[in-house]
Amino acid sequence: MSAPTLYLAPGTCALAVHIALHEAQAGHELVRLDFAAQQQRSPEYLAINPKGRVPALVTEHGVLTETPALLAYVAQRYAQGQLAPLDPFAFARMQEFNSYLASTVHVAHAHGRRGSRWADDPASHADMLRKVPQTMAECFGVIEDHYLQGPWVLGEQYSVADAYLFTLSGWLRSDGVDVAQFPKVADHRRRMAERPAVQRALA
Amino acid sequence: MSAPTLYLAPGTCALAVHIALHEAQAGHELVRLDFAAQQQRSPEYLAINPKGRVPALVTEHGVLTETPALLAYVAQRYAQGQLAPLDPFAFARMQEFNSYLASTVHVAHAHGRRGSRWADDPASHADMLRKVPQTMAECFGVIEDHYLQGPWVLGEQYSVADAYLFTLSGWLRSDGVDVAQFPKVADHRRRMAERPAVQRALA
Repeated sequence: MSAPTLYLAPGTCALAVHIALHEAQAGHELVRLDFAAQQQRSPEYLAINPKGRVPALVTEHGVLTETPALLAYVAQRYAQGQLAPLDPFAFARMQEFNSYLASTVHVAHAHGRRGSRWADDPASHADMLRKVPQTMAECFGVIEDHYLQGPWVLGEQYSVADAYLFTLSGWLRSDGVDVAQFPKVADHRRRMAERPAVQRALA
Repeated sequence: MSAPTLYLAPGTCALAVHIALHEAQAGHELVRLDFAAQQQRSPEYLAINPKGRVPALVTEHGVLTETPALLAYVAQRYAQGQLAPLDPFAFARMQEFNSYLASTVHVAHAHGRRGSRWADDPASHADMLRKVPQTMAECFGVIEDHYLQGPWVLGEQYSVADAYLFTLSGWLRSDGVDVAQFPKVADHRRRMAERPAVQRALA
């Protein structure tokens, strides 16, 4: 059994998986990619992840990508960490939350800096950037009002969903949104910052 | 144990969950929303899904949303249907594929008709629409070359990922992409169209 290797870059959603690996005490190794040098587009990295994104996790059985899949995998592979509920409905609730973060919240954020994925005109990119504070605030309103049970995402049980929420709520300030508008999210950030696994991942 | 109720609308990704429920023989009920009449924004529906989107599945334990979470839930809840691998790594592979469809492929498609989610200027929406054939072709190139093992997404084992791929590959024509460029995807569409569960969901 070899240690899993996480490919990541600073400031990306790979932080969520990094926190989860620390929580699971998976004994992982890290490879940091330099996005400024376009290392995520190098032939060596595209052989690992043909999508040219992070995170990617090289496991004993092969490579996995996509944050929600990686988070669930870490929770299930290192089950002693108790990072996901076992009950199918509660597990689905966690997956629902993580999928919303991936396909709606992360996507809203990405329009502030990766507009060239979806349009070619610089004026369109500027238009997208202007809307990010509104869309991110709407997303976190949904999270605050309907999904974050407190103190953790799923209530009393800490899970990998908490690592993912902490990662994306960390983007609010640079997206022009004051987290203080969302008291449960702000409280969640404070609780997360106290966890040793979070401190190790951020170090 | 009550039958699950799927809220859906024609032409949406809810088709994937609808197919999965037929494959699982879950004995589900359907509620069709009229998007033209903005029923997804009605107070009654927002009480079910505050995000105002489909699909939503009302289960014996509560409401679930987000297609990847629903697909995994249907596979696990109706395990006799054998719609997902049991091995954690193979399950993660399926989740990786479904998460890519939700957060990259579906998002690429949505820029052709839902540009107002991410920008306000009609010129930006037109710019986004022009790029959809390119981004959707790039996504299906990744699927064809790296993820669709054949004959099914995961190889010999049919899974809920096949219902999801069939749903999104059905959008290619209206997105200005000829599926014939992608022989494995085109073959997958033909195989899927022969399945009784698919025929029932489309009926």
